[in-house]
Amino acid sequence: MPIPIAATTEVSGLIVDLAVVLAAAKVGDEIFKRLGQPALIGEILAGLAVGPAVLGFVELNATLEVFAELGVVFILFWVGLETRLDEMQAVGATAGRVGVAGVALPFAGGYGVALALGEDSTTALFIAAALSATSVGITSAVLESLGALRTRVARTILGAAVIDDILALILVAVAVGIAAEGGVDVGAIALSIGLAVGFVAFFALGGVRAMQQRPGILQAPRFSESPFLPAVILCLALAALAAEVGLAAVIGAFLAGMIVAETKEQHPIEDEIAPLYAFFPPFFFASIGISLDLDAFVDPGTIGVLAALTAVAIATKVVGAYAGARALGDRAALAVGVGMVPRGEVGIIIAGIGATEGVIDGELFAAIVGMSLLTTIVAPPLLRRLLNPAAH
Amino acid sequence: MPIPIAATTEVSGLIVDLAVVLAAAKVGDEIFKRLGQPALIGEILAGLAVGPAVLGFVELNATLEVFAELGVVFILFWVGLETRLDEMQAVGATAGRVGVAGVALPFAGGYGVALALGEDSTTALFIAAALSATSVGITSAVLESLGALRTRVARTILGAAVIDDILALILVAVAVGIAAEGGVDVGAIALSIGLAVGFVAFFALGGVRAMQQRPGILQAPRFSESPFLPAVILCLALAALAAEVGLAAVIGAFLAGMIVAETKEQHPIEDEIAPLYAFFPPFFFASIGISLDLDAFVDPGTIGVLAALTAVAIATKVVGAYAGARALGDRAALAVGVGMVPRGEVGIIIAGIGATEGVIDGELFAAIVGMSLLTTIVAPPLLRRLLNPAAH
Repeated sequence: MPIPIAATTEVSGLIVDLAVVLAAAKVGDEIFKRLGQPALIGEILAGLAVGPAVLGFVELNATLEVFAELGVVFILFWVGLETRLDEMQAVGATAGRVGVAGVALPFAGGYGVALALGEDSTTALFIAAALSATSVGITSAVLESLGALRTRVARTILGAAVIDDILALILVAVAVGIAAEGGVDVGAIALSIGLAVGFVAFFALGGVRAMQQRPGILQAPRFSESPFLPAVILCLALAALAAEVGLAAVIGAFLAGMIVAETKEQHPIEDEIAPLYAFFPPFFFASIGISLDLDAFVDPGTIGVLAALTAVAIATKVVGAYAGARALGDRAALAVGVGMVPRGEVGIIIAGIGATEGVIDGELFAAIVGMSLLTTIVAPPLLRRLLNPAAH
Repeated sequence: MPIPIAATTEVSGLIVDLAVVLAAAKVGDEIFKRLGQPALIGEILAGLAVGPAVLGFVELNATLEVFAELGVVFILFWVGLETRLDEMQAVGATAGRVGVAGVALPFAGGYGVALALGEDSTTALFIAAALSATSVGITSAVLESLGALRTRVARTILGAAVIDDILALILVAVAVGIAAEGGVDVGAIALSIGLAVGFVAFFALGGVRAMQQRPGILQAPRFSESPFLPAVILCLALAALAAEVGLAAVIGAFLAGMIVAETKEQHPIEDEIAPLYAFFPPFFFASIGISLDLDAFVDPGTIGVLAALTAVAIATKVVGAYAGARALGDRAALAVGVGMVPRGEVGIIIAGIGATEGVIDGELFAAIVGMSLLTTIVAPPLLRRLLNPAAH
């Protein structure tokens, strides 16, 4: 007779889910490491294996999604810790060109292919926006695993990803305006953009400067002997605030990391962040696999749309970002192009907004989700090969 | 115009909640440290402040409850890391006496006071079971903050808490049997008890012995350079399994900590567990405050029941556990008695089961919740005074 502990059944069921997902992700990691393949692909496939598509041990729920989001938040926080503002500013012009060209080409390509597939102009706008997005979490994890975070390629990708997120915000605002009201509220969009740009500028410039002037401030509270918890609170707060102004939460986490990095001479904080960076990210990678619905792709029509979108998404992003990054040299520019390819959750979010607005149907949504996942899975092995010729 | 990112609104709202709760808990911690008071009371009151009872910034939800549960799971995992099986066996007889006497007296007292308050015998059974429970999370945190984990008092409390949890399982099974079917299914209850005892014996004895024989096993996987993630996976798995066999999840976490402790000579793991032990427990303490519903206590009748239950709960637990622990000497035995006082979430869970069975009404439930919280808040200052005469 199992005791009916009603008050805790849900909570203990969720802890079972967390244990299953973490253990599965690490088994996938282990298998792929032994095969000499990228560990994060192993974690994604492990999520697919335990998810509804195959074994059905776990389903996505709000708690798992929060753990996944904290996974990518702590990836970008870690990346921010390895990044200095002046180094970002040094690649600023190149990152700007990569960001703009890496959005313009996929947008044009996405709009064109959508019209060619017979979609109307509002639907094409959402498809184009979904193809323009960049999800920097996967690429950051690959760069970190190759020890390549402190390279110009990495900084250019990170800077361009921040710019892409602001541009995606604009595109989505315009698309939603057109879908919902048949017109664009220029004042409201300008306000959104102002908030987003102001957020980035205020914390990147002001936050870093404030920390340079008072590098001991995170150690001031008595509740903690190290700056660890104050730094984590700053990370969560800026992630939440970034989401509130319409940006990706990871942009806030990245800025928090850059701010905290200014205190590193006082207290090496990486040793304490490392366990969180080990604990949470597997939930992010596994969730990508858990959310994969294989049934959606048995329809030949969907597969055709998926193939077209994916081909355009990869080609336009690589070419656009490569063109923007040519100043770095051919191989590095190509690495930047490949590094910008993953759409990850950002493309899926934009498609979800389109579905909410009633302009993206089920087949298109499945195709965009598939495109986001394929671009996410395809980029890491290529990036490893470009940055680390010794790897296989 | 806020961008309606439907797919992520819930997740980013939950991350806002986490940031608010963690920041508030640490502000409460800071204030209480500066006042020279127990930090965890500051964290509980901070939860009360941001919760529905006062400011209403956050409400309990499944994700917050999972973070709270992981908080107490990592407290007990940490405590287990500081505990050796042979040290537990050395206090085994005393812990057994404390566990049995510390359940028998509160049970008898709770049953008596419930009948005196005019409740029927089935309701009295649930009240008695709720008064018998022990929640070891709060006491563990106090013992840790005083550096007293490696004392005989601490080990006796931990051993007795394991025994209490098994006894509570029996009492709840009997109470549910009587409430639901009007009779007790002896076979089913024997099976429950067998599972619970078997779980504890198998992992305490077998798990520790297996780890002694192969202390390097947690470092075998290639996915991780340290035993950190394998240890965390073991912790979550045993916590989930303990909950599945009807025990508290923290019992599994404690056993996992004891097992992992056997590998410490190979690799000092505490440095890597410490950040999780800093990150999660504030959610546990703050959640206690968030769940506090002050409105329930404006009714004079409820306050009377609450006062009676709390007085009986404290007196019977202190006297019972003290009597069981007399072999340790007067002051140490009293510390054990006080350390067993907090009912925490265990008392609330039992009351919740009674409510589900329809034998605990709203007023009684509020009184039991209040009793659980009062016993939880009252114990830490007393325990500090007993164990550390220097700290006021």
